[in-house]
Amino acid sequence: MIAILKPNTTAEQQKSFTDWLKNQGLDVHISNGQFQTVIGLIGDTTKIDADLIASLSMVEAVRRVSDPFKSANRKFHPDDSVIDCSGVKIGGGNFAVIAGPCSVESEEQLTSIARDVKTFGCDMLRGGAFKPRTSPYDFQGLKAEGIELLIKAKKETGLPIVTEIMNANHLDLFEEVDVIQVGARNMQNFELLKELGKTNKPILLKRGLSSTIKEWLMSAEYIMAGGNEKVILCERGIRTFDSQYTRNCLDLSAVPVLKELTHLPVVIDPSHATGSSKYVKSMALAAVAAGADGLMTEVHSDPINALCDGAQSLTPEQFGDMMNAVVSVRNALKGIL
Amino acid sequence: MIAILKPNTTAEQQKSFTDWLKNQGLDVHISNGQFQTVIGLIGDTTKIDADLIASLSMVEAVRRVSDPFKSANRKFHPDDSVIDCSGVKIGGGNFAVIAGPCSVESEEQLTSIARDVKTFGCDMLRGGAFKPRTSPYDFQGLKAEGIELLIKAKKETGLPIVTEIMNANHLDLFEEVDVIQVGARNMQNFELLKELGKTNKPILLKRGLSSTIKEWLMSAEYIMAGGNEKVILCERGIRTFDSQYTRNCLDLSAVPVLKELTHLPVVIDPSHATGSSKYVKSMALAAVAAGADGLMTEVHSDPINALCDGAQSLTPEQFGDMMNAVVSVRNALKGIL
Amino acid sequence: MIAILKPNTTAEQQKSFTDWLKNQGLDVHISNGQFQTVIGLIGDTTKIDADLIASLSMVEAVRRVSDPFKSANRKFHPDDSVIDCSGVKIGGGNFAVIAGPCSVESEEQLTSIARDVKTFGCDMLRGGAFKPRTSPYDFQGLKAEGIELLIKAKKETGLPIVTEIMNANHLDLFEEVDVIQVGARNMQNFELLKELGKTNKPILLKRGLSSTIKEWLMSAEYIMAGGNEKVILCERGIRTFDSQYTRNCLDLSAVPVLKELTHLPVVIDPSHATGSSKYVKSMALAAVAAGADGLMTEVHSDPINALCDGAQSLTPEQFGDMMNAVVSVRNALKGIL
Amino acid sequence: MIAILKPNTTAEQQKSFTDWLKNQGLDVHISNGQFQTVIGLIGDTTKIDADLIASLSMVEAVRRVSDPFKSANRKFHPDDSVIDCSGVKIGGGNFAVIAGPCSVESEEQLTSIARDVKTFGCDMLRGGAFKPRTSPYDFQGLKAEGIELLIKAKKETGLPIVTEIMNANHLDLFEEVDVIQVGARNMQNFELLKELGKTNKPILLKRGLSSTIKEWLMSAEYIMAGGNEKVILCERGIRTFDSQYTRNCLDLSAVPVLKELTHLPVVIDPSHATGSSKYVKSMALAAVAAGADGLMTEVHSDPINALCDGAQSLTPEQFGDMMNAVVSVRNALKGIL
Repeated sequence: MIAILKPNTTAEQQKSFTDWLKNQGLDVHISNGQFQTVIGLIGDTTKIDADLIASLSMVEAVRRVSDPFKSANRKFHPDDSVIDCSGVKIGGGNFAVIAGPCSVESEEQLTSIARDVKTFGCDMLRGGAFKPRTSPYDFQGLKAEGIELLIKAKKETGLPIVTEIMNANHLDLFEEVDVIQVGARNMQNFELLKELGKTNKPILLKRGLSSTIKEWLMSAEYIMAGGNEKVILCERGIRTFDSQYTRNCLDLSAVPVLKELTHLPVVIDPSHATGSSKYVKSMALAAVAAGADGLMTEVHSDPINALCDGAQSLTPEQFGDMMNAVVSVRNALKGIL
Repeated sequence: MIAILKPNTTAEQQKSFTDWLKNQGLDVHISNGQFQTVIGLIGDTTKIDADLIASLSMVEAVRRVSDPFKSANRKFHPDDSVIDCSGVKIGGGNFAVIAGPCSVESEEQLTSIARDVKTFGCDMLRGGAFKPRTSPYDFQGLKAEGIELLIKAKKETGLPIVTEIMNANHLDLFEEVDVIQVGARNMQNFELLKELGKTNKPILLKRGLSSTIKEWLMSAEYIMAGGNEKVILCERGIRTFDSQYTRNCLDLSAVPVLKELTHLPVVIDPSHATGSSKYVKSMALAAVAAGADGLMTEVHSDPINALCDGAQSLTPEQFGDMMNAVVSVRNALKGIL
Repeated sequence: MIAILKPNTTAEQQKSFTDWLKNQGLDVHISNGQFQTVIGLIGDTTKIDADLIASLSMVEAVRRVSDPFKSANRKFHPDDSVIDCSGVKIGGGNFAVIAGPCSVESEEQLTSIARDVKTFGCDMLRGGAFKPRTSPYDFQGLKAEGIELLIKAKKETGLPIVTEIMNANHLDLFEEVDVIQVGARNMQNFELLKELGKTNKPILLKRGLSSTIKEWLMSAEYIMAGGNEKVILCERGIRTFDSQYTRNCLDLSAVPVLKELTHLPVVIDPSHATGSSKYVKSMALAAVAAGADGLMTEVHSDPINALCDGAQSLTPEQFGDMMNAVVSVRNALKGIL
Repeated sequence: MIAILKPNTTAEQQKSFTDWLKNQGLDVHISNGQFQTVIGLIGDTTKIDADLIASLSMVEAVRRVSDPFKSANRKFHPDDSVIDCSGVKIGGGNFAVIAGPCSVESEEQLTSIARDVKTFGCDMLRGGAFKPRTSPYDFQGLKAEGIELLIKAKKETGLPIVTEIMNANHLDLFEEVDVIQVGARNMQNFELLKELGKTNKPILLKRGLSSTIKEWLMSAEYIMAGGNEKVILCERGIRTFDSQYTRNCLDLSAVPVLKELTHLPVVIDPSHATGSSKYVKSMALAAVAAGADGLMTEVHSDPINALCDGAQSLTPEQFGDMMNAVVSVRNALKGIL
């Protein structure tokens, strides 16, 4: 960490500041320039509050030199992580597509969709059992029964299953779940993240609606710091000033940015990002071209009667059409990205 | 709910749409205008997905006529709610000030600050025991020990105590806590909200960093739907495009908006909103002038050595100065707001 | 336009409201539903202030049924517009790439870059002569001399030229410019737009940093209402809460949204969107896959010595590499989008 | 300016970098720390592109130490500026209220409102003659005739007049205008700002909808760099993710932030910020309590028939009520702020 002092700082003020820093267990390196003095803080600065230092009257500016994320940092782990999801690999050149209904509604609904998406090349089945809804009066999911239906569909089709957790107390129910999803609204539910850090299951960590990329990586870090390094990042649209035509704004530049910062795989969810099935295909193709490691899309056989998010669900046929285009673009990109 | 059909909708399409609506258990009222047909949906529309209907090819626009929040709605509860926090009232003309350190650090620190803020007219003591931190490597709070120290300080000073909960499993530890705080990052931790709805303690519900006012009221609704109507709303700054000089943007127009929409009391936290002690006084006064029911500010006897958020903490003397000004402005406003 | 009345509106209030509407020259269609009354406003509602009506005490909600943009609206012009830029076509399946330096610096610099980008398949040459800079102390461009150098480079290479206008008084200087660019900061400089509406040159209209898609189309409408229908829309990144790793957030979902709303061509500028040359290629490919009609990228032979925006400029070699990949993805998409 | 090099930078790379900096006319001060090397750039760094340097592979981070604004900077001008608007002073303890209709509609309308607001203590009259409207089909103002009516109202009442300019070519029409307003959409119309810098009239510079405080000060700097130091800053709400209940979000923390950064006076416009007359009074009082130097509010005798922005206009009686409250709060704050 570097602190730049204001031009008129007295020697006494400077000494009082460096003494305080030394009391925090840091070494201090002072560089007196012609126009400013720069104090280099050497040692474990992770516990130092940069905002506090910036607020001191003698300090012009403060800057952390090193990234606050360690386990997720590509600098210390240059190779792409490849996450094995019960046989389906993602990352390091392995591309995976996750599809299924927003909510699990019935055995028949789920198994039928599962078979359909498998036919079109889907790698994993998604379906919501516990549903985070803005309103307490909306359908909250089939819960434990929903997970049982997912397990049945997995046995029937062989597709690994992905479903969202909202409460660490439910972990027992997730024993046969292959990938545990953390939703956007729980991205900074640190108590949940810590518990997931103690498991050894792949975690699909969605980006919060207004979370910075750095905050997102710090949430991954919560899981990884607990010992579970199997984190898959999922961008699903951020909140901006304009939501008239799309529910959120898909931030595709997050893909190359994350590829630079971290070794973790990055998946794009065009369904939640746009909120509208008519924009899913073009955003899925854009995600592939941007270098994403996978896609997550909602598919429903009967969107108009879906219990939630029908507006953004593809029919199985539309999903098949999207998959054909995805394969074409991926082939075109071989050796290019 | 109202659905406006596109001009070129055929009679057949219209019939298929209204049949579908009737199957959902709704009555339908059709109004054929010169330029458009408006379908009124009559009955319990809370389970109807407005986005789904808007996505149908024949539908031009959809609009919910009624607010999705019920218990929090001023329409059904015209008088201000007055929340009793172990003797300290808030709302309906009762103004309360909550102050204390960001984190509980030691018995000495907490009791000393508690005595100081009480002297200057503070009504309740705040202090963080469980701390939600962006980084897993930052200080996470004294946890159970922190709550014990708060209880000691309460016994010593008589001030009711306010502290944050991050996990419903910790509820047992909060038995002697007077007001339970839900932090911004947990505003949509619906599992936590549901559990708090089963308690009978006042809940201070902070607004999420990028939560709309409607989403915030729906989170209050989660608590109230469980039977606990003692919700205090706390605005603490929202996230915008500019965070160079203040950490967040304090949305003071939320005060008159909430006064219109809901009967629940509204408290302002200028410390987290600005992130800088030098802006706290002016924003506290602005909050009072805007009609807020209370303030929540961070106070620390030794900000530079605080374990978290020292940059935004007032010293006890600065707090006293702020309180004098608050009293002046409140007196000036008597009979005006 | 539709106004929904509050449930407790009296007959007298309703009459006073409809009388007022009739005085505004509108016909009124009243639909009394079981739970609400809907007033349809028939006639020219473009002059009616929807916010004003919404503010009336008896009105629950107001909704415009028709889009406020006419000339740009695909509903009234179903086929894609094809804009001819001195022989280079864009839109309706015609894809065009515009490249060149941020600022025109010298004849040698510009001609050298122009030759290079032409070799790699660029269709038009861009270069800033009048530069909108945040600071009055920054380089403001070579102005008239810059335009002369662009014209020389055009004669030398045959590439049509694109350059930004900041003041309608400069229009005389733009006689030999092929496409006139309106920058993001001038998207709502309505006086400038009106003057450009009187010319018959193609206008490349960049989206404002925080302009909604509807506002952007209304700005296109200003130009088209004056008689000039040759408008090319250019998305160049919007402003969000996160600007640590990219300067702006490229909103690629604007591409399919605009394809639905308007017949005008859409070009993507990944250089300004990301602010970093290392992210330009992946965002250019994503733009192509999303269905954009063209790209606009900054290229400089010596980015480190560029007078502005060197950080986001590709070298000619990097541009060539990007173009190869663009061609591959476009080939893969034939018959798919 | 300070550049921090990456840990693994070779001596050769470092030399190539410092040589390049010296070629740019800068002196260089090198500080080799244990963990990083810091390069201090000494000399005129205003022409150096910080983004470019940050993009170099060997550079970890770059930081400007000095503010880019000079004339507006309080560091070089510690005392508050007092702007004299034809006899009405603003700044340095002088508080001024500007009121009037959104648009000038007729002599009768304007003079009647002018007399009313004067009675209630208003200091200056506002009224739009040239109106920037999102749609080319909306009322664009009475233009030259509107300015003539403002001049008549000024003669009648003695109130100095404030009106917006959209085009520097119209400056001749503004000879008898006392304060020229630059609207939010033109805050970065640099060509207009430069022309206003050549006048000697007070300029009321509104903040752009998504302009940072620093960009706003840089726009003031454009005017001041031309020789006109009479700039009044006007905050009128910024654009955020939530616009359901208020049109924009009034950023009141801008008041104390600007008071620290600049000597220029700061005025608040609660009418445009909220878009709703029912929220104007509480936000006006909050602005006063936050330390603003003045208010700008819309007043109309007949809001329902106003040609624009009727929803946000106070009636003269509501304005009088607001003014009484403003006086009370200002009295309460004497000696406090």
